[in-house]
Amino acid sequence: MLNVSIVGAGQTKFGRHDDYTLRELFALAAHEAIEDAGIAPKNVEAAFIGNLSADQFNRQTHIAPMMVDAAGMKGIPATKCEAACASSATALRAAILAVESGHHDVVMAAGVEKMTDLSTPGVIETLAMAADQPFEAEPGITFPGIFALLAVAHMAKYGTTKEQMAAVAVKNHANAVHNPLAQYQKEITLDQVLSARMVAWPLGLFDCSPITDGAAAVILTRNKLAKKFTDAPVKIKASAQANDTMDMCDRSDLTSLYSARTAAQLAYKQARIGPHDIDFAEVHDCFTIAEIIATEDLGFFSRGMGGQAVEQEYTALDGEFAINTSGGLKAKGHPVGATGVAQIIELYHQLRNEAGKRQVDKPNYGLAHNVGGSGATAVVHICERW
Amino acid sequence: MLNVSIVGAGQTKFGRHDDYTLRELFALAAHEAIEDAGIAPKNVEAAFIGNLSADQFNRQTHIAPMMVDAAGMKGIPATKCEAACASSATALRAAILAVESGHHDVVMAAGVEKMTDLSTPGVIETLAMAADQPFEAEPGITFPGIFALLAVAHMAKYGTTKEQMAAVAVKNHANAVHNPLAQYQKEITLDQVLSARMVAWPLGLFDCSPITDGAAAVILTRNKLAKKFTDAPVKIKASAQANDTMDMCDRSDLTSLYSARTAAQLAYKQARIGPHDIDFAEVHDCFTIAEIIATEDLGFFSRGMGGQAVEQEYTALDGEFAINTSGGLKAKGHPVGATGVAQIIELYHQLRNEAGKRQVDKPNYGLAHNVGGSGATAVVHICERW
Repeated sequence: MLNVSIVGAGQTKFGRHDDYTLRELFALAAHEAIEDAGIAPKNVEAAFIGNLSADQFNRQTHIAPMMVDAAGMKGIPATKCEAACASSATALRAAILAVESGHHDVVMAAGVEKMTDLSTPGVIETLAMAADQPFEAEPGITFPGIFALLAVAHMAKYGTTKEQMAAVAVKNHANAVHNPLAQYQKEITLDQVLSARMVAWPLGLFDCSPITDGAAAVILTRNKLAKKFTDAPVKIKASAQANDTMDMCDRSDLTSLYSARTAAQLAYKQARIGPHDIDFAEVHDCFTIAEIIATEDLGFFSRGMGGQAVEQEYTALDGEFAINTSGGLKAKGHPVGATGVAQIIELYHQLRNEAGKRQVDKPNYGLAHNVGGSGATAVVHICERW
Repeated sequence: MLNVSIVGAGQTKFGRHDDYTLRELFALAAHEAIEDAGIAPKNVEAAFIGNLSADQFNRQTHIAPMMVDAAGMKGIPATKCEAACASSATALRAAILAVESGHHDVVMAAGVEKMTDLSTPGVIETLAMAADQPFEAEPGITFPGIFALLAVAHMAKYGTTKEQMAAVAVKNHANAVHNPLAQYQKEITLDQVLSARMVAWPLGLFDCSPITDGAAAVILTRNKLAKKFTDAPVKIKASAQANDTMDMCDRSDLTSLYSARTAAQLAYKQARIGPHDIDFAEVHDCFTIAEIIATEDLGFFSRGMGGQAVEQEYTALDGEFAINTSGGLKAKGHPVGATGVAQIIELYHQLRNEAGKRQVDKPNYGLAHNVGGSGATAVVHICERW
């Protein structure tokens, strides 16, 4: 059981931001989080910042001090954490441990990525570095290809269909219509997904999350202090991280992620609840098949039943178990280093009943599932209404 | 006051490693640390790994799960921390907070960098990304130029001489002769340093630390458990980190690093001791002038007296206050992401009286000072004999 709450949150609009630099994007999100917590920048004692590769995207390393300086927090300890697309969930976890250690009372966990400074081929090449370079990227497989392997294995073993995968994209776009910060606030049809240009069979263009710029930040404190900052803190009940081999060829099963199953088990144990106590979840739908596998790995549905669950609208906004109410990576957007904290922000707003038209009915528990690469890292957080 | 001890340490030889990949280098250091702690890989519960930019050096991101998998620790939470040349000191700090949080009993802090996969111009370009890209790197200044600015300012204000800077290199090479893991186990003369090819006036080639491959790892646990692992644990009494602006043009003083002074003050306060209780120190001598400034920022000598201290052999191995007994970054080598943990390993061996011919006389306290870039990050750790 953890003793940490979220007392402030801020997020930029996700999308293409030609008019903002990396540090400006960060400062926008950080200032909103600080203001939401009712504090000043100087009250933040430490920061952990997720970012995949400003090295490649923006030719800039050592971003943490630069980011906090841009946001008026010069001087505080600030460290970048990187775990591919799970970077900011690992930053959140490091921030949680910093609060739990007793050494800091007010800590920022954040994430930022500005991907559109590179051309699309450059982005694809950079993202491929998050797979095992000699075993995967160099021989020529990129992430759509890796997730296509998972999709084919899932189809072969469980009869999962292209239509079921497409239903994930349709649902998440429908949710994003109600999210003003989403990259794509527009609905798409099943036909559009199924007839889209093929990327790596069976995954078409609309089965893939987009290239995105964005930043997200939250302010954490210990539970005892939380009410000083806000009337409605959100408790973090569990933070669990697990890893797996980088290379797919060393895994025994391509229909599930060992890291995600392990992190979920640890998180449920820490929160002392089970998957059926969870009211809604943000899961890592970098590709549509990834959401189907995630809902199984997290124990929401039996292995092989994730495809049917989404097809039968069980995971829709008004279904029995809403998944990716924010629009998910697919439609909200996926600025890789910011995604983990952005997921937590959706939990924060839902558990405070301030998610507007995408609000789920009186939730008590929300879960966030953030995956790095093809599952070499998985991080699960569980939040509870105050 | 912290409640954390080091109970195992491992380091590869520093230098050029054409025969090992990044993960193999890591595994060598990790296994040695694990063996030194008398445990098995499966006993390590979490890992934090410092690395500047495998992105650029090795075209590989998301290295943490890959590293722990290569070292037999598949599955454990493993996160990369990056803060330029202070990356592994921030990883050590995150690992310390993880132990202090009570969530983990046995945690690895490590660092790894394999720089020689890139050409020298590629390395210089990559390192320059750790300065402020639009304000410094793009206009054309690289790190030798930045530290030359500090050197010129220090010379102008305090009368520090090229000979005093050269004395740092001579001393550190003399120390490295006794360090079998050092990149350069050979002495150099003052004349050699002074007549070396100029890099950025007043810094010549021998005023600069080299390009290095290497890895370093330590095992941490809480004090109460430490004696189960080894008869001679080394206590970590303080861990402090502070930041400053990335760009030099926003700083009011070029003769000192605000981040290092701040981190040192915090560390002394946490350890409840002062600079004159420290018996020896490993400081961040990326350039010779950096060691002189470091010894002043840490309070070992008054501002402006660091140059005289080294010239008068006060900081020699057999002097009153030994600095960089390992050979420092200058002669031991500087695999950037591994340097912070390698410094701690020198403290560990010295405080266990196992540093062989470079052993200082019965030390009680050692200090490690690790700087990222031109001082946007500084991390200070203080260790105590058990």
